Amino acid sequence: MKIYEFKGFPNPARVRIALAEKGLIDETEFVHVDVPKGEHKTPAFLAKNPSGAVPVLELADGVVISECSAIIDYLDHASGEAELTGKNAKERGVIGMMQRKIEAGLLDAVAAYFHHATEGLGPDIEQYQNKGWGERQRNVAISTIHWMDEVLSHQAYMAGDRFTVADITAMAGFAFADFVNLDIPESCSRLRDWRTRVSARPSAQVAA
Amino acid sequence: MKIYEFKGFPNPARVRIALAEKGLIDETEFVHVDVPKGEHKTPAFLAKNPSGAVPVLELADGVVISECSAIIDYLDHASGEAELTGKNAKERGVIGMMQRKIEAGLLDAVAAYFHHATEGLGPDIEQYQNKGWGERQRNVAISTIHWMDEVLSHQAYMAGDRFTVADITAMAGFAFADFVNLDIPESCSRLRDWRTRVSARPSAQVAA
Repeated sequence: MKIYEFKGFPNPARVRIALAEKGLIDETEFVHVDVPKGEHKTPAFLAKNPSGAVPVLELADGVVISECSAIIDYLDHASGEAELTGKNAKERGVIGMMQRKIEAGLLDAVAAYFHHATEGLGPDIEQYQNKGWGERQRNVAISTIHWMDEVLSHQAYMAGDRFTVADITAMAGFAFADFVNLDIPESCSRLRDWRTRVSARPSAQVAA
Repeated sequence: MKIYEFKGFPNPARVRIALAEKGLIDETEFVHVDVPKGEHKTPAFLAKNPSGAVPVLELADGVVISECSAIIDYLDHASGEAELTGKNAKERGVIGMMQRKIEAGLLDAVAAYFHHATEGLGPDIEQYQNKGWGERQRNVAISTIHWMDEVLSHQAYMAGDRFTVADITAMAGFAFADFVNLDIPESCSRLRDWRTRVSARPSAQVAA
């Protein structure tokens, strides 16, 4: 299979971590998409993903899957047990809930701040900016960070007692937060401890 | 199980349709949350869903699941085959992708227009509005509608040849679009035909 991506960007990192967790890195061909030059907005790329975003998964039979949550759900079911997304109904519900809350409240919120309230990817790419929206989303991210610290008061990982896709989304969110100088406060000690633990996983090295 | 909701609102409609498709309506107790009066922002409700939104699923053992995509994934795996969310890796990838694109591009975009560029739920609830963002998201919804019509040029439903959660998200999105007077253009004949077909399903009556 092929992954179209820009190495080091937050969303591609989610899929790289999942590939590594599933032992699928060596079966994957990575295709570089030059996002800062706008290659993700060309007709050839939009034919693969009309949303104009990386990463995109292309299977050997030509089927194309975009949206990180969907790509990771595919990968988790394509090989071994569905440890990352949940092995039964209740696990799937809880993990999916936490993944979506962290995606919306941290990763997408930080992305909105970056694209709307900073220079983002530059004027050629950022053709619509809304500073007020970006600043608002930065506040959403800060609230989410405090909520995540609270979640970790009764469990070791974002969706329970083991590492899941909810942790992967959080890892990418905090990598993006680093990039825009949004730090985890000193007071959020459980979250800082969680980050030390997940950063030590071999999969974290593959995404960096 | 219990569903905390406001009947007739778009996100609760998604879960009602899924419950009906899975034959689970009679096993569900619906609890009314007075959203226009702000009951979804009270401490008691925020303890169930810190995002302050309906619907919320509460299982008999006390486990609470919010976020529609996660609730529906739970329901789909709790009873019968996972027809709505996908029975194998590739189905899950494609259905999850389409569900997420329609959620972000139609349902959430129309919601942003409603909450930011109209009176929304009124000044007591809408304490932050950003008209420019709302108008921008209305344009996102219009682009998504045209893309969805194109998708239907080669398949009968949003994620392939059968009804799935991607269609459910679209049904809720168009119900919300009706409410804000955003119509499917005459030129989108495949989408209009799709809407006639899905609206005739028994599950569509349960949500209205």
